[in-house]
Amino acid sequence: MARKPKKVEALKPQLPKVMVEEAVRAALLEDLGRAGDITTDATIPADARAKAVLATREDGILSGLPLAEAAFRAIDPALKFKALKVDGDRLKAKQVVARIEGNARAILAGERVALNYLMRMSGIATYTAAFQDLLEGTGARITCTRKTVPLHRAFDKYAVKCGGGSNHRFGLDDAILIKDNHIAVAGGVALAIERARAFVGHLVKVEVEVDTLKQFREALKAGPDVVLLDNMTPEQLAEAVAINKADNGGRVKLEASGNVNIDTVAAIGRTGVDYISTSKITMAAPTLDLGLDIAIS
Amino acid sequence: MARKPKKVEALKPQLPKVMVEEAVRAALLEDLGRAGDITTDATIPADARAKAVLATREDGILSGLPLAEAAFRAIDPALKFKALKVDGDRLKAKQVVARIEGNARAILAGERVALNYLMRMSGIATYTAAFQDLLEGTGARITCTRKTVPLHRAFDKYAVKCGGGSNHRFGLDDAILIKDNHIAVAGGVALAIERARAFVGHLVKVEVEVDTLKQFREALKAGPDVVLLDNMTPEQLAEAVAINKADNGGRVKLEASGNVNIDTVAAIGRTGVDYISTSKITMAAPTLDLGLDIAIS
Amino acid sequence: MARKPKKVEALKPQLPKVMVEEAVRAALLEDLGRAGDITTDATIPADARAKAVLATREDGILSGLPLAEAAFRAIDPALKFKALKVDGDRLKAKQVVARIEGNARAILAGERVALNYLMRMSGIATYTAAFQDLLEGTGARITCTRKTVPLHRAFDKYAVKCGGGSNHRFGLDDAILIKDNHIAVAGGVALAIERARAFVGHLVKVEVEVDTLKQFREALKAGPDVVLLDNMTPEQLAEAVAINKADNGGRVKLEASGNVNIDTVAAIGRTGVDYISTSKITMAAPTLDLGLDIAIS
Amino acid sequence: MARKPKKVEALKPQLPKVMVEEAVRAALLEDLGRAGDITTDATIPADARAKAVLATREDGILSGLPLAEAAFRAIDPALKFKALKVDGDRLKAKQVVARIEGNARAILAGERVALNYLMRMSGIATYTAAFQDLLEGTGARITCTRKTVPLHRAFDKYAVKCGGGSNHRFGLDDAILIKDNHIAVAGGVALAIERARAFVGHLVKVEVEVDTLKQFREALKAGPDVVLLDNMTPEQLAEAVAINKADNGGRVKLEASGNVNIDTVAAIGRTGVDYISTSKITMAAPTLDLGLDIAIS
Amino acid sequence: MARKPKKVEALKPQLPKVMVEEAVRAALLEDLGRAGDITTDATIPADARAKAVLATREDGILSGLPLAEAAFRAIDPALKFKALKVDGDRLKAKQVVARIEGNARAILAGERVALNYLMRMSGIATYTAAFQDLLEGTGARITCTRKTVPLHRAFDKYAVKCGGGSNHRFGLDDAILIKDNHIAVAGGVALAIERARAFVGHLVKVEVEVDTLKQFREALKAGPDVVLLDNMTPEQLAEAVAINKADNGGRVKLEASGNVNIDTVAAIGRTGVDYISTSKITMAAPTLDLGLDIAIS
Amino acid sequence: MARKPKKVEALKPQLPKVMVEEAVRAALLEDLGRAGDITTDATIPADARAKAVLATREDGILSGLPLAEAAFRAIDPALKFKALKVDGDRLKAKQVVARIEGNARAILAGERVALNYLMRMSGIATYTAAFQDLLEGTGARITCTRKTVPLHRAFDKYAVKCGGGSNHRFGLDDAILIKDNHIAVAGGVALAIERARAFVGHLVKVEVEVDTLKQFREALKAGPDVVLLDNMTPEQLAEAVAINKADNGGRVKLEASGNVNIDTVAAIGRTGVDYISTSKITMAAPTLDLGLDIAIS
Repeated sequence: MARKPKKVEALKPQLPKVMVEEAVRAALLEDLGRAGDITTDATIPADARAKAVLATREDGILSGLPLAEAAFRAIDPALKFKALKVDGDRLKAKQVVARIEGNARAILAGERVALNYLMRMSGIATYTAAFQDLLEGTGARITCTRKTVPLHRAFDKYAVKCGGGSNHRFGLDDAILIKDNHIAVAGGVALAIERARAFVGHLVKVEVEVDTLKQFREALKAGPDVVLLDNMTPEQLAEAVAINKADNGGRVKLEASGNVNIDTVAAIGRTGVDYISTSKITMAAPTLDLGLDIAIS
Repeated sequence: MARKPKKVEALKPQLPKVMVEEAVRAALLEDLGRAGDITTDATIPADARAKAVLATREDGILSGLPLAEAAFRAIDPALKFKALKVDGDRLKAKQVVARIEGNARAILAGERVALNYLMRMSGIATYTAAFQDLLEGTGARITCTRKTVPLHRAFDKYAVKCGGGSNHRFGLDDAILIKDNHIAVAGGVALAIERARAFVGHLVKVEVEVDTLKQFREALKAGPDVVLLDNMTPEQLAEAVAINKADNGGRVKLEASGNVNIDTVAAIGRTGVDYISTSKITMAAPTLDLGLDIAIS
Repeated sequence: MARKPKKVEALKPQLPKVMVEEAVRAALLEDLGRAGDITTDATIPADARAKAVLATREDGILSGLPLAEAAFRAIDPALKFKALKVDGDRLKAKQVVARIEGNARAILAGERVALNYLMRMSGIATYTAAFQDLLEGTGARITCTRKTVPLHRAFDKYAVKCGGGSNHRFGLDDAILIKDNHIAVAGGVALAIERARAFVGHLVKVEVEVDTLKQFREALKAGPDVVLLDNMTPEQLAEAVAINKADNGGRVKLEASGNVNIDTVAAIGRTGVDYISTSKITMAAPTLDLGLDIAIS
Repeated sequence: MARKPKKVEALKPQLPKVMVEEAVRAALLEDLGRAGDITTDATIPADARAKAVLATREDGILSGLPLAEAAFRAIDPALKFKALKVDGDRLKAKQVVARIEGNARAILAGERVALNYLMRMSGIATYTAAFQDLLEGTGARITCTRKTVPLHRAFDKYAVKCGGGSNHRFGLDDAILIKDNHIAVAGGVALAIERARAFVGHLVKVEVEVDTLKQFREALKAGPDVVLLDNMTPEQLAEAVAINKADNGGRVKLEASGNVNIDTVAAIGRTGVDYISTSKITMAAPTLDLGLDIAIS
Repeated sequence: MARKPKKVEALKPQLPKVMVEEAVRAALLEDLGRAGDITTDATIPADARAKAVLATREDGILSGLPLAEAAFRAIDPALKFKALKVDGDRLKAKQVVARIEGNARAILAGERVALNYLMRMSGIATYTAAFQDLLEGTGARITCTRKTVPLHRAFDKYAVKCGGGSNHRFGLDDAILIKDNHIAVAGGVALAIERARAFVGHLVKVEVEVDTLKQFREALKAGPDVVLLDNMTPEQLAEAVAINKADNGGRVKLEASGNVNIDTVAAIGRTGVDYISTSKITMAAPTLDLGLDIAIS
Repeated sequence: MARKPKKVEALKPQLPKVMVEEAVRAALLEDLGRAGDITTDATIPADARAKAVLATREDGILSGLPLAEAAFRAIDPALKFKALKVDGDRLKAKQVVARIEGNARAILAGERVALNYLMRMSGIATYTAAFQDLLEGTGARITCTRKTVPLHRAFDKYAVKCGGGSNHRFGLDDAILIKDNHIAVAGGVALAIERARAFVGHLVKVEVEVDTLKQFREALKAGPDVVLLDNMTPEQLAEAVAINKADNGGRVKLEASGNVNIDTVAAIGRTGVDYISTSKITMAAPTLDLGLDIAIS
């Protein structure tokens, strides 16, 4: 039963176009308000044309380019948008990401929404990669949580993947994560897991959160798919990894959380856990600086 | 590792109120159109009061009562709605499900939307139970698919649970289901599964569809969570169950599909498969007859 | 006044594109969820191309093709969709309905939504035609009701027309249908009709529901446009037809309802009523089996 | 067949609460923008309370009070709103329509949306009544058209009814109105009507527009429910009424349109037509002046 | 500090395409209802083609053409729409505004929505220009208010600009307008303005409404950006202008309101005020008559 | 003209309830997905009750409490939510912010959305205050930009105010901000400002961005309301302040931007500029840690 798949590289993630279009239109309406881009409409003639270059201002990983493209197209379907890079690319500062050409007013009006998506999502991707890079040589993957900006979960999680991270559940509905309250009311870990398995379909995984190694041993007996080891020291984590190997050959996946940051992640990764989850990559990622250089004719 | 959880009964499923309210308001606007209930407004005085009894007209399992209640409340928050049964209850014909009291126009205007949800969802629950009843004594569970009416997936899947069935994935995004096209392009079952595991997070299950026992044996080597055995005879299914037990002690779940109907389901269940999936329970369920008896004063 | 228009065939019905697009986008978002088609994105390269053939698996009447086309176009506007049939066509099994070509991921991601609309609507059209075929030689038309799946009324009613059926009112607002409660509160059939006529504009028809021939005679005196004869035997219906001809030369239209099914509809049709309404055609129609055969390159 | 219903007065029209709430929330979001009522938030303490009186500033007919109430409630469900009048009431200047009490900021923030609906709709009701009053003694009813402000059709048509007018069709979908283009392509009036009858259900009325008495005579032969006499002189209209009476005893309803205004309507009414339709009542109605007198404590 | 910019003409205003598309689709869905344009679908073959000419029926100023174009494109993206004029153009009767060519059903189905926007907005532009023309030779600009039709504020304000008028604030959130209630609670004009300035950012202007010259003098001391002189006589207004010039050289802008109509506006303009605001231009503008002449082949 | 208002403290900002409710419902639907909180529904009985305490885990400034309350109320209107603090309050770690009591499932299901808003917005408020605190003793105010997370602009800007910061324009439509491209095309600063003034109404402020003192002097001549001094050294900024005072007595407001961060802000503030704008406070604010302690009974 010890199947070890040969290592394949994952394909790059993709955002559904319908989802992107809906978000981008709402974002444009937010920025254009009730009167549109009054500065541009007041000063740039309706038929002025422009060329623009979307470029990085610092090193990082690209994420959100389809949203930027969709923003410009929603403003004016006649704009030419030529992408030179794709999401997930590692870029140096001053690299050209895309070229845009067409109506000058349209380019100016779409700029901010395009950049707001791009800078934030590229920031998440870049910060995720910084964490993941520190895990090189371990088998651990950095993983996001449900701590994301409301209405941006799909985009935040996609950006994490662009940065080489892995995704935790997308919502309350696509995986079971049993915490102390659930265990307490259910009457113990085993019962909570049974209740969960009885409730959900066969395509839903069950994860249990534990705080101590004692709880961890109990949890393992109940047969979860994943155990979340919360707030443990690297020593405790390493011991949990050993216990897990002995118990089930490592088939149950181990996820560490709590006190994960850019300074602690490497040590946590060396304990042998499979996943390290943190809200830092979605909620504390600095934006990546990108800019639009526009020449109007 | 052979953990056998003691059998617990699943709690009854629950629909999020925000989801219910949004759906019901849209359904009311569809039925009320641009002028509202003109027959009622033309003939029943604005201050007339009514009492109504929501009752079954035939035996079946209740599903959709929260949508019915929400429909009446959206029409008029002052209506009194007293539920006497809950979703999932097995009912005889002529049993009272709820009592409604208040403004007569409101009760008449909300009646059809309430019943349209209730009759369809109770129909699904009842038909699901008919399948599941035929599986008694086997370990198999009847399971729905993604063949649901557009925009009703959450309600259809909920109704399946009310009827004692189990849910397959809710969309394209919450579980992996690898079919022949994916396998062909990926270059074989093993590679397809590796690609899937590399792509998704640790809380996503991987299922593979196979048509033959040969494919099944190959698929098992690749370590899926679930295998979908499509269009196999009961004999083939039984053999797959035996192979699976020998290979992994039955940890990999087996799902049968194809030619599943009310006449064939029992025999399929006796083969020992874990799940039997069919679109029949969502797409071919007869509605359950329920009615509203109204007395206006 | 006895004008007998020479028989013209009705043009095929048409769904407004804006309505189709809105519905299809919502349905796609439901199926794609927050992460999109993860199986396809994980296993099929972003630039893979495919050809697909949409074909019937059994005999039936096509309905919903514009929704299928819109689903694929919403996923990817660059997909080529060539329709070979139009809604309303009577098809044999294994007939090609459309050819689709383009990005492989897009075709796979749009497949289920396209088929869910198509199979359900073609099922309604096919079942409607089965009823209408049994009425051949009579002047009766099979007619749907307001018992439709919430948020699908326009599509359900359109499918009925594709199958050769006729539409009853689309909502509470576009025609008057006076039932016993309205009559009771209004103080009799005549008063209810007067109130209705006084309330609505001159482009709204007035129908009254009656259960007995006595009520029918009373109703006729009040001058309705249509009378709904509910739960009458074929003998009673035939008598009502005779009474109606004597009273107004058949100008008032007669609609029969109650106990209408595939076994009873022919006999009801032979009574001479003009319309036979039933929820069976929208709520109990088996789906028509159609499939997408995809070749990825 | 000459049924003459005794004259009953129509009940007052009613707007569905779900429709009202949806519209009002959108209108409030439009007015509140992204920062809310900054003047009030800057100057009035959060806990200040106020009493307000909604009153007429001139004579007229009330329409839109449920929208005003819904606006205040959406801003703050705790506000007390006591309606002293109902839509359709004929009011003198300076009559109190409603009393509102509660949080001062909420009353100030909701004022404009409430008044914008109320002043416009009461204006339509009042102007409609002015037309209808000029028709007293004739059997003619003033009727609106589809020339309404986009997204306000239901409210505009409701206001017309509050003013004693009658409603024409609500959209393209609830009645047939055959114009010259339809006739030309269909190959004549009779064929156009036949096509229409063959296409739509039995609860849809068919109206034909004609410009000349010759066309009118042709149209009558084809058996429409209503004929629209467009741009005819009073003399022609009177002749059409006579022709109609001779042809069908007046069962076919006659509607006059074209050059209808406050100066011409009486003369048109005296010709004996049943309905007089004009966009003036919805598109040229002066607003009725109403105001909110607020005392803050 | 006496900067007198040389007079430049303002560029023509522009409506954001995303805003236009969203509004137009909602308006089409309102008009098409649940069954679409049944008259056209019943009588015009699906493949019929048409040419149409959009033309003025009377003199006026064009506004709303992008909405008309968007309406036709939303119905059928394949329609050719060639605009011959642009919003803001002064037109004579019978001038061709645009040519449309393509599917006949699409042109007929889009006609009413296109015209409802166009006639109303051109009416506002035309009426605004009538006011502004009367102000020629004065420095005064006619200005709209927040008395606009709900959900049309952006379009109403745009139409005012097309007619040469100027816009007041777009909502409660983009400028401060302090009225008597705010002053009373704040404890005087000066305190109210201080509170406003403390509350909002540096890009928000502060206007104060006064009823008397005494209040005006007080208000000036508090340093507002604009003062609204409500319900003053021309004599009082002229005095206020003089006071203002003496106080601050005219840097504080003066706006007159109250009893502004087509008969009084010229006299008010001659007082020297900078702006004259009135709800008349948005709420009492007669529609401009435009029509679509269609030839179907 | 040198009016110096006595210093008043601004009232606390307020979010419109309709805006809050709409956002929160969408956020809940995002998190609940298609199946709701399956862990809770599987393990906690439907009638379990809970008490919860919302508390800070670290020092900071509260922002977003109305969104948290609205999230719980949208899940279950029967929940009791007692706020003990208000937005804008400075809090120590472990302070109780609110108490919640009611259905246990509802509290668990709403927790994440409530905290995601609260932690992010309180983080912005807290980080804003850290900047503003460093400006104590200067007259400078820290100010946000349009670099905000899409669809969160109103909430981000509100949080900035909770933290004592000031708001820049909310969108492209509520103020003029002339940048180099606008100046270049318009033909100079003066022309750009004239065009802007000619285009917009009298309640819109005009700001111009300059990079050099030479440009600044030119800009002043054109009479803007505000000048944005971009990327200048503290020395240049101080010189600009002096120039401005000499030119117009400081009536034109000066805003500094570029290289603003927690280390540089104090020195910039000491230059005498009025406003310092930075995207750091909205795009780089660490979340504030808050948590929900739940006891289920």
